Amino acid sequence: MHSWVDGQPQAAVNLQNRGLAYGDGVFETIAVRHGRPSLLGEHMARLALGCQRLSIPVDVALVADELQRFASQLGAGVAKLILTRGDSQRGYAPVADAPARRILQASPLPAYPQSYGDQGVRLFLCKTRLGEQPLLAGLKHLNRLEQVLARAEWQGSEHAEGLMCDGHDRIIEGVYSNLFLVRDGTLLTADLQRCGVAGVMRAALLQQAPLLGIPSQVRDLPYHELEQADEVFVCNSVYGIWPVRSAGELNWSPGPLTRKLQAVARTLLET
Amino acid sequence: MHSWVDGQPQAAVNLQNRGLAYGDGVFETIAVRHGRPSLLGEHMARLALGCQRLSIPVDVALVADELQRFASQLGAGVAKLILTRGDSQRGYAPVADAPARRILQASPLPAYPQSYGDQGVRLFLCKTRLGEQPLLAGLKHLNRLEQVLARAEWQGSEHAEGLMCDGHDRIIEGVYSNLFLVRDGTLLTADLQRCGVAGVMRAALLQQAPLLGIPSQVRDLPYHELEQADEVFVCNSVYGIWPVRSAGELNWSPGPLTRKLQAVARTLLET
Repeated sequence: MHSWVDGQPQAAVNLQNRGLAYGDGVFETIAVRHGRPSLLGEHMARLALGCQRLSIPVDVALVADELQRFASQLGAGVAKLILTRGDSQRGYAPVADAPARRILQASPLPAYPQSYGDQGVRLFLCKTRLGEQPLLAGLKHLNRLEQVLARAEWQGSEHAEGLMCDGHDRIIEGVYSNLFLVRDGTLLTADLQRCGVAGVMRAALLQQAPLLGIPSQVRDLPYHELEQADEVFVCNSVYGIWPVRSAGELNWSPGPLTRKLQAVARTLLET
Repeated sequence: MHSWVDGQPQAAVNLQNRGLAYGDGVFETIAVRHGRPSLLGEHMARLALGCQRLSIPVDVALVADELQRFASQLGAGVAKLILTRGDSQRGYAPVADAPARRILQASPLPAYPQSYGDQGVRLFLCKTRLGEQPLLAGLKHLNRLEQVLARAEWQGSEHAEGLMCDGHDRIIEGVYSNLFLVRDGTLLTADLQRCGVAGVMRAALLQQAPLLGIPSQVRDLPYHELEQADEVFVCNSVYGIWPVRSAGELNWSPGPLTRKLQAVARTLLET
């Protein structure tokens, strides 16, 4: 599959890249269908927010334009966009005005079993806890060792995703998804001000919910709320929504609100 | 300056490198003098520990041998060794048995002012707090956004280093150094089981202390202990030891224990 660095076909980056040295950058994983990046506006908004919070200067219009050209060559697949603070010599201090480096990598759309969306998935209960760091919370930055450790906790195909909590037994998210609970018709998802990645699909669903007359709450979710949930689902901007059928000893069936939002997610990804 | 990837002269890494994608790896910053890496055994021990805790398979003897050959070509300078989990396709799950990738980069020995060692340095009080993550604490891994944010808090040459605390106002370390307090003849340094990087020079000094008849304690250090300190110094394996002359409103003069250990550090780095 092809890849670009700063708009040019290239398969490697300089060893001085601060993404390699420190994870000093952000990324987006973007579904591409019919030659177009899905949820382009939402991805660019999150990228801009991440760069702003990390003080990485970025020309979002240039990145969006490049991504669109990349997607049109790709046709269908996943475009991974990495934006790093650029290159620097040894040392944490960034070189002033070093241009951000734009990396685009193509991969095929993942071949998830049809059953994940139809009957739902089983969540592995990860022992790895998310540390709290308000300065980085919500961002899709390149410091992802916690996710690497969590994903290494299970093998095989029984579990499609893992459930991650913080150090206070609050439900936060999946390893590569956000998580929603439904209780008494209300949509619940974790507040991500101390840890977690604020996914683009999560944001889009929270934006759609009031338009569909669905009340939603973004707040702390103590673990016991999982036991009280009528429905549970995970989401991201590549696969959309998967109902959750089990997490540890708990079981659910895909419910009506999950099904309704699953159709919404599908539409969001395909338009 | 030259650089190697897996023992071969090379200035770039593949975009699939997991160091770039997730910061999935560890690093060592090693002073090189007279063609030899300083504190080789200590650096290799920490590297091995980091790889073990992250389950990155590594042939330490091979890495040490490569580093020694690299150092002998370099003569004098700093060798930065990065070890990543290797390459993989998109997704947090590592490819089983993917070989770790060994990256070596040379840079000149930093030209710190002579006064840093002689009269001491001023510490900037960083607002960036270290998040707590026991699974990663102590390791010199590649997820270093906290240090990037902390180092960006000050510019100019008034402050040579920054003082970092955790979210509970406990003193942890410098941005690129460890920190020691001296009180009533006892050496104090932070316990690093929840956050921080366990530096090679810190380890070497803690090992030397009893041989020199200096009592030492590794424990939590509430911020107010800084006010009670008779001497304060920072250390790392490139510059050795710098006395701290101020941190915020507090001031110290380089004391006798700092001077004694400074000589020890110099010897450790030069043999």
